[in-house]
Amino acid sequence: MTRFRREHDSVGEMDILENAYYGANSKRAEENFPITGLKADDKFLDALIEVKKACAIENEKLDLITTEQKDAILYACDKLLDGEYRDNFIVDPIQGGAGTSYNMNANEIIANIANEKLGGRLGVYDMVHPNDDVNKGQSTNDVIPTSGKIALIRYFIELKDECENLLASLEKKSEEFKDVYKMGRTQLQDAVPISLGQEFNAYKCAIKRDYKRMDSAIKILSSVNLGATAIGTGLNADSTYVKEIVGVLKEITGLDLKQAEDLVDGTQNLDSFLFSSSILKTFATSLSKISNDLRLMSSGPQTGIGDINLPVRQAGSSIMPGKVNPVIPEVVNQVAFAAIGNDTTVTMAVEAGQLELNAFEPVIFYKLFESLRALKGAIYTLRVNCIDGITANKEKLQDEVEKCIGLVTALAPHIGYEKSSELAHKAQDTGKTIRALVLEEGLISEDELDKMLDFKKMITPGILEEDQLNEK
Amino acid sequence: MTRFRREHDSVGEMDILENAYYGANSKRAEENFPITGLKADDKFLDALIEVKKACAIENEKLDLITTEQKDAILYACDKLLDGEYRDNFIVDPIQGGAGTSYNMNANEIIANIANEKLGGRLGVYDMVHPNDDVNKGQSTNDVIPTSGKIALIRYFIELKDECENLLASLEKKSEEFKDVYKMGRTQLQDAVPISLGQEFNAYKCAIKRDYKRMDSAIKILSSVNLGATAIGTGLNADSTYVKEIVGVLKEITGLDLKQAEDLVDGTQNLDSFLFSSSILKTFATSLSKISNDLRLMSSGPQTGIGDINLPVRQAGSSIMPGKVNPVIPEVVNQVAFAAIGNDTTVTMAVEAGQLELNAFEPVIFYKLFESLRALKGAIYTLRVNCIDGITANKEKLQDEVEKCIGLVTALAPHIGYEKSSELAHKAQDTGKTIRALVLEEGLISEDELDKMLDFKKMITPGILEEDQLNEK
Amino acid sequence: MTRFRREHDSVGEMDILENAYYGANSKRAEENFPITGLKADDKFLDALIEVKKACAIENEKLDLITTEQKDAILYACDKLLDGEYRDNFIVDPIQGGAGTSYNMNANEIIANIANEKLGGRLGVYDMVHPNDDVNKGQSTNDVIPTSGKIALIRYFIELKDECENLLASLEKKSEEFKDVYKMGRTQLQDAVPISLGQEFNAYKCAIKRDYKRMDSAIKILSSVNLGATAIGTGLNADSTYVKEIVGVLKEITGLDLKQAEDLVDGTQNLDSFLFSSSILKTFATSLSKISNDLRLMSSGPQTGIGDINLPVRQAGSSIMPGKVNPVIPEVVNQVAFAAIGNDTTVTMAVEAGQLELNAFEPVIFYKLFESLRALKGAIYTLRVNCIDGITANKEKLQDEVEKCIGLVTALAPHIGYEKSSELAHKAQDTGKTIRALVLEEGLISEDELDKMLDFKKMITPGILEEDQLNEK
Amino acid sequence: MTRFRREHDSVGEMDILENAYYGANSKRAEENFPITGLKADDKFLDALIEVKKACAIENEKLDLITTEQKDAILYACDKLLDGEYRDNFIVDPIQGGAGTSYNMNANEIIANIANEKLGGRLGVYDMVHPNDDVNKGQSTNDVIPTSGKIALIRYFIELKDECENLLASLEKKSEEFKDVYKMGRTQLQDAVPISLGQEFNAYKCAIKRDYKRMDSAIKILSSVNLGATAIGTGLNADSTYVKEIVGVLKEITGLDLKQAEDLVDGTQNLDSFLFSSSILKTFATSLSKISNDLRLMSSGPQTGIGDINLPVRQAGSSIMPGKVNPVIPEVVNQVAFAAIGNDTTVTMAVEAGQLELNAFEPVIFYKLFESLRALKGAIYTLRVNCIDGITANKEKLQDEVEKCIGLVTALAPHIGYEKSSELAHKAQDTGKTIRALVLEEGLISEDELDKMLDFKKMITPGILEEDQLNEK
Repeated sequence: MTRFRREHDSVGEMDILENAYYGANSKRAEENFPITGLKADDKFLDALIEVKKACAIENEKLDLITTEQKDAILYACDKLLDGEYRDNFIVDPIQGGAGTSYNMNANEIIANIANEKLGGRLGVYDMVHPNDDVNKGQSTNDVIPTSGKIALIRYFIELKDECENLLASLEKKSEEFKDVYKMGRTQLQDAVPISLGQEFNAYKCAIKRDYKRMDSAIKILSSVNLGATAIGTGLNADSTYVKEIVGVLKEITGLDLKQAEDLVDGTQNLDSFLFSSSILKTFATSLSKISNDLRLMSSGPQTGIGDINLPVRQAGSSIMPGKVNPVIPEVVNQVAFAAIGNDTTVTMAVEAGQLELNAFEPVIFYKLFESLRALKGAIYTLRVNCIDGITANKEKLQDEVEKCIGLVTALAPHIGYEKSSELAHKAQDTGKTIRALVLEEGLISEDELDKMLDFKKMITPGILEEDQLNEK
Repeated sequence: MTRFRREHDSVGEMDILENAYYGANSKRAEENFPITGLKADDKFLDALIEVKKACAIENEKLDLITTEQKDAILYACDKLLDGEYRDNFIVDPIQGGAGTSYNMNANEIIANIANEKLGGRLGVYDMVHPNDDVNKGQSTNDVIPTSGKIALIRYFIELKDECENLLASLEKKSEEFKDVYKMGRTQLQDAVPISLGQEFNAYKCAIKRDYKRMDSAIKILSSVNLGATAIGTGLNADSTYVKEIVGVLKEITGLDLKQAEDLVDGTQNLDSFLFSSSILKTFATSLSKISNDLRLMSSGPQTGIGDINLPVRQAGSSIMPGKVNPVIPEVVNQVAFAAIGNDTTVTMAVEAGQLELNAFEPVIFYKLFESLRALKGAIYTLRVNCIDGITANKEKLQDEVEKCIGLVTALAPHIGYEKSSELAHKAQDTGKTIRALVLEEGLISEDELDKMLDFKKMITPGILEEDQLNEK
Repeated sequence: MTRFRREHDSVGEMDILENAYYGANSKRAEENFPITGLKADDKFLDALIEVKKACAIENEKLDLITTEQKDAILYACDKLLDGEYRDNFIVDPIQGGAGTSYNMNANEIIANIANEKLGGRLGVYDMVHPNDDVNKGQSTNDVIPTSGKIALIRYFIELKDECENLLASLEKKSEEFKDVYKMGRTQLQDAVPISLGQEFNAYKCAIKRDYKRMDSAIKILSSVNLGATAIGTGLNADSTYVKEIVGVLKEITGLDLKQAEDLVDGTQNLDSFLFSSSILKTFATSLSKISNDLRLMSSGPQTGIGDINLPVRQAGSSIMPGKVNPVIPEVVNQVAFAAIGNDTTVTMAVEAGQLELNAFEPVIFYKLFESLRALKGAIYTLRVNCIDGITANKEKLQDEVEKCIGLVTALAPHIGYEKSSELAHKAQDTGKTIRALVLEEGLISEDELDKMLDFKKMITPGILEEDQLNEK
Repeated sequence: MTRFRREHDSVGEMDILENAYYGANSKRAEENFPITGLKADDKFLDALIEVKKACAIENEKLDLITTEQKDAILYACDKLLDGEYRDNFIVDPIQGGAGTSYNMNANEIIANIANEKLGGRLGVYDMVHPNDDVNKGQSTNDVIPTSGKIALIRYFIELKDECENLLASLEKKSEEFKDVYKMGRTQLQDAVPISLGQEFNAYKCAIKRDYKRMDSAIKILSSVNLGATAIGTGLNADSTYVKEIVGVLKEITGLDLKQAEDLVDGTQNLDSFLFSSSILKTFATSLSKISNDLRLMSSGPQTGIGDINLPVRQAGSSIMPGKVNPVIPEVVNQVAFAAIGNDTTVTMAVEAGQLELNAFEPVIFYKLFESLRALKGAIYTLRVNCIDGITANKEKLQDEVEKCIGLVTALAPHIGYEKSSELAHKAQDTGKTIRALVLEEGLISEDELDKMLDFKKMITPGILEEDQLNEK
């Protein structure tokens, strides 16, 4: 038989499961927000508990709580950080109240564990009170954004690590394919020669910039408003506490946090989250472009473009035997679309802040965490299950580039745009190669033509002429 | 000790947990898509299994599988619909391959349960084959969109039900507040009188349109492409099967499904999902506007607008005792932002279809399901925990409307725009009421003024003059 | 030398160009909103003037203005509708004030033309007053949304007309290409046969749905709130006027307008604009998908997919002679991206309405007009400069389909998924055709194989088996 | 009578207005792209002409064109930069072809002016050829993105200048209002005291970060790919030219440009535009939040929040005399919504790049230019017509803060959260002030209470306790 205890809070009385470590505020919130059916993000909870720990340490140092209280709170926090009692976090991640329910839930769990440790009973907050002690000198409005930022920074660090692996993988492929000549295509039309290695290098360059921009996100997220309390005026927070608390938190988290220069600003303005989201969106867009290219270049095997082959990862069809699909780039595209959509949500939520606070942090965190986790998984599988195993159809590509009408571009500086254009159309109509037509018409000597159509030179900025100058 | 069996598929060999009902294709997919960490939506799985059931019935009817195979497949489907074996669906909802992995996973589980039932061994598909039998006459490309549509329709039906409750609640409040006069506000500036009931009625009207639009979504989603197989040409599907299969599915699901008129179109174009998403977005936008209004009208209690009071649902602050926040409208706003962002994702995914197929259905379903579930939860809590308990500050409102300068508008047809404007500025400067000023300046007799400023008439289109005409 | 007259309004005095027909309110607005540098949309102005005309007619009928005033107002309106005095509309289309400046600008111009006609002087509103007479019984809040809706309906009608042309063009191509067999592609990988005509027919089907949805937009936009005045309570509007005014407007505009059932709702809720925007977005998405396909299928000419040829519309490159690019689909893509972005703007603007009014109509109209104009131009050029001139590479396509490994799918029902899969891989490795391998291995007789691989049957749902049944 | 000359290009023959300076390529493009009806942005054209100038100088230096040709080209460019011949730019800003038509249009105009200068005839490109000479060593694919970036940088610089003015204005207001005490509000509910100056300072802080981020945009945009030619391999560009051309351009433009490290990357990846767009979006979001606050705080005048008064800029209503609306913040909101929507368009366009090129630059530039221009206008009017003239209702605010129940928060550290909560509810019920209740119950001495409720201390982080410590 389920047994309950009776708790009261400022709203009234509430039945709570007898052995639950959360309290009335948490329970009300659980009932108020039946939205996703999910629970809080683990990195976020870790950060929230670390904030509580930092505050307890500082509060005790300043004699604002007793050593006994501090020890009990730290005991509770450490248990929670070890993963115990975590199912007492019962509030939906999309919640009203600017995260108050996250904070209340944490305060209640910690108070109950602490009280129990000190010999008290669940639901009786006589030795450690959720608000007066655990939440001492704090407000949801500084605790929650600070915790969110810590979690985001850690997600960004993980993403950066995975990004480094991706960069190394692209670098390797760029090297491997550096002599695989092919026709470059602009607007999906044959343009002029390039090497497959140059293409992979361009991917690397784009991702590298995204990678670097993640540092900007981490930097702006490192400015936290702990000590601001309710609206940035630091009301009810001790002056020394305000000065020292971020230092303590920095030590506990191991992150290079610093306190916002203006705490009122730091409490009401969430541009740091939007900027971070934009950086993820830009990254997602780069990944989507690369995935589109990989799907395009591996199209076929017979009636597609067929520049490259993606590794076979799974049967492609339940009905078409032997079909293989580019499932990995496809999932990356979808993650990109999700991250882009999440940015729309974050934009609207950030825009909707009012006066001293933005009450919509919960959905911002929820969506940013989703994007960060998904992007990390996406680039992991992109690297391991796709890019690392890509092979090139070297002979086919080389053959195509030799026969391609696009080579005529290289002759334009010598015979003019209009003559070249005429040749191109003739090649298209007759099926003859540009080389054949040029020799046929005696426009350029074979020797000179060879120089002009040296692929290696054609794909290297400035080399052709440099070389020719050397020969003079 | 964990024990494995060895399976092979078209890609090669694979170790599968000895007692797993999924097979090699599912396992590969699980490894390929480490994205959300979540599993498939339950309504979607139900629909997918019902599709499999319908196909087995029809296939047996046409002698394409044996009665024994059919019975075994139906046994498996019914077990799955009862909730058994469901943890064998192991693929991430954001997946490459247009849902092939969903389909393969279902085929494998059903085949294994069916084979086991027939006395076979897990992983040996000798009596019922995942592709040749369970997937008979089907392709991922007709099975998955069809299943997705069934799930979406059911979500929409649930949402509509909850919407009806919301409409009834708004209707009731509209009636309750019909004589609560207050100043209407445009651009947040005092305008002319209105009743609080009219405001709630306007909310009802907006939601009513959203409600009706859901029927358009259901209608377009009811057109399914089952029978299309791979690309809409129905290749490998028996002609009678093609004609009858949707009828069978209709019976099994109890939904008013019909087959797409053109199956090629029905396979490659996903505008039905985007249109449905737009309808959710428009609904979300209405809800967000209403939530903004509720938060605004309940602002205060002392320095805000204070037209109404929202029911107290939980303590509002961990630091500010006695504070109560509009947490319910706040969570509705956030759900709205999420649904709007999800629409961006759906837009990009729908736009990205290529040629005979759109490979990005998985993320489309994932996001639409999220929106539908969240919106349903949001309007449930909006109704039960907010709207039903709203009270009006009737006296304060009546008092305000009597003193309001905005009343001058009612006099403009009699004394002109410019004179009225002058009066308004004078009222603002002196603090006198419009009534007092008008009488002071002898502009209108008290008797006439009473008629002009009769609130009830002022808030009813056409009534004022009608009444006056009657008096003539 | 520029000469000025001095006007005053409720804010104070203002210098106005001596011969300007606008007044002080317009001038203030021009200075307040230096945003786009553009002027109001012409269709919108037409509608606004027609509204003014309708109101004058009705007001005179009810003796609320004199016949002389009415005639002068109608004279002014007709001149404006003929295109005279139009440069007196000086306010930026992105403006604060919910369109008050549009309305004031119109009122002032009409009053000045009317007064001048009656022998008065510009800037002296003694015979016809902008607010008391021209704006009689009206408010910006009913006049502006009504005018916006009329303009939108007309844009939608034009778009529909252009859409019909596009549908006819797609229909024609669908017919022309019905026997052009080719490999269908899913996920850019060779799938099973289809005809090019079926593909164009699928495009037609999608556009047809978009076309029909435009009727839903027109329908919802046809519900106007004229008669609502400031907030929907109809304050200051005569009761007969309220009942009759939309009827008069209906006659003047020739559009099937009807008055909103609830005028409070009709004034504050803008879901009709968002729904219309969504329909444009969905249409844009269909167009973008089609454009992507056209660019993909015409890629090459040598190293691309090369199913079709787009007509040559202009030289493709300033450096690459003879290069031709798919410039028409490319511009359609961009218009689609613009319409999708505009929908984001409209979404945010609609969501931001507060209480009795949404002040953000100006940007909503601005963006919707942009989308409608651009989409119309885009589908005109898509049809005339692209689709009508598309040709198919019929032989190449037929050749490809004959050699394609994907044909193996048709054999799977006969030899099983696993054997077929094995054959597919063997074909890929050896370069032999499926046909050759099947005969080589004696799996199926040549006769039966011919039936199974009959392209016409392969692309027609249900036909293959039907035929086979007939033979039994 | 309109007279024509006959020109031919690679597509065929074309009639061109006899005295037009554009040629066949431009004319074809004009006909192909009937989209917005607008013409190219002026800053963009300036940049494009400067690029042409730089190339002519460098080409002559390397003997690739003659001095005579160079002089004629420079003559043409300078005329164009002076504003002459500008109406010959006839191509719609939303155009297919990655900007080829912009480039061709410029090449043709310059060639015609140059030829005419050298004594030639319009349409006969014998002395200076559009492609061979004006476009020497160039491709649309390096010229157009480079020109776009130059224009964007200049727009950003202008925006920054205007931003500095806004920052100064906010700073001034922050100072002016530093002693205006008021109740801070979180979630629109009374929270704890703050000063109006702190609020304006928080606005300043947010805008300051946006301002700084604009430098990141400028920095990334400064990396141009001139010298890359068609796909980044620099084909047809002289090696010295490749090395030197950006230096020449830097001098001509006066901007701190540098050449992209990898030209292949620099040609195909457009993340720089998306990142810039994100920065604008974040800025727009800050502005929208501030505008929302200003509208909220100035709501009333009688039934709103009424903290502040915005300057009266125009009559607010055509029907409601004396009404004044917050038209300036309203237009800023709309510009923000437009910039946010434009970011969606830019995102989709950037994502859609394929292989060696992104063909969708035209719509990207079009939308970014729109956002930049509109934002500049918006913050100009926000400053001059709104913020600079804001006044505070100081007495009312001070009075409210004294009576506010929210003051109880300051007592919680002394009497506990629960007791405080009880007091708050009692104050709410009885209408008594917190001060009165505390003294009534003898909870705190009047002396201590005075200290606790010192507003100046309450709004200053850390000061309260610091002060108390000093007293010990």
